[in-house]
Amino acid sequence: MSSIFTKIINREIPGYIVAEDERNIAFLDIMPLVKGHVLVVPKLEVDYLFDLDEQDYASLMAFTKRVARAQESVISCTRIGVAVIGLEVPHAHIHLVPLRGMGDINFSRPKLKLDSRVMEETAALIKAAF
Amino acid sequence: MSSIFTKIINREIPGYIVAEDERNIAFLDIMPLVKGHVLVVPKLEVDYLFDLDEQDYASLMAFTKRVARAQESVISCTRIGVAVIGLEVPHAHIHLVPLRGMGDINFSRPKLKLDSRVMEETAALIKAAF
Repeated sequence: MSSIFTKIINREIPGYIVAEDERNIAFLDIMPLVKGHVLVVPKLEVDYLFDLDEQDYASLMAFTKRVARAQESVISCTRIGVAVIGLEVPHAHIHLVPLRGMGDINFSRPKLKLDSRVMEETAALIKAAF
Repeated sequence: MSSIFTKIINREIPGYIVAEDERNIAFLDIMPLVKGHVLVVPKLEVDYLFDLDEQDYASLMAFTKRVARAQESVISCTRIGVAVIGLEVPHAHIHLVPLRGMGDINFSRPKLKLDSRVMEETAALIKAAF
């Protein structure tokens, strides 16, 4: 069965997509730590980031940098933090989290539930900046 | 003044170095979340990861994957987690944290203080696997 991320990639379920290229996609985390929290995902459905081959990995990382640049240009933050944990969804994904302080990237914190209009507006802002 | 990481790179202060190439270095975090917690650092002293140019960034990311592979081959864990927060030391660095569960990458947890012999042995194991 395909992962929830593959379903977003295939437009089988909706996602707040902010960037996409041939091999990669980025969309808002629907359980964000802060507003503008993005997940960057390789289209190839591998569970573990470091199992990507050199090319797919390099492509994902270069794409990640471009997404982070777009985020920081439109989301109020000190910088973009990065986290890969990957014990939740078995499809590699990189969290890009706009940071103001260390605590903003603590995954044991309660997640936000943002209004769909706020999510749409945030996604549109990042997308336009990408 | 050069960063504490530049001082390790220049061998002005000691570090438990596990891997090194022309542009990058990796050493044990002396305040680890778990045993085998490594910092990967570009030799170029930039504060913010995404300020590295394309080449230096790509080199750092490829190096990071190799270090993670070495870690997971010798440290008991489910996988290697990744975090970039970078609000502590003003020299870009990637945390590579051997994970068994989500909580292992929570930076608000108290840090471990491991015996220098344990640190030396751990560094030697990862270094040999690199």
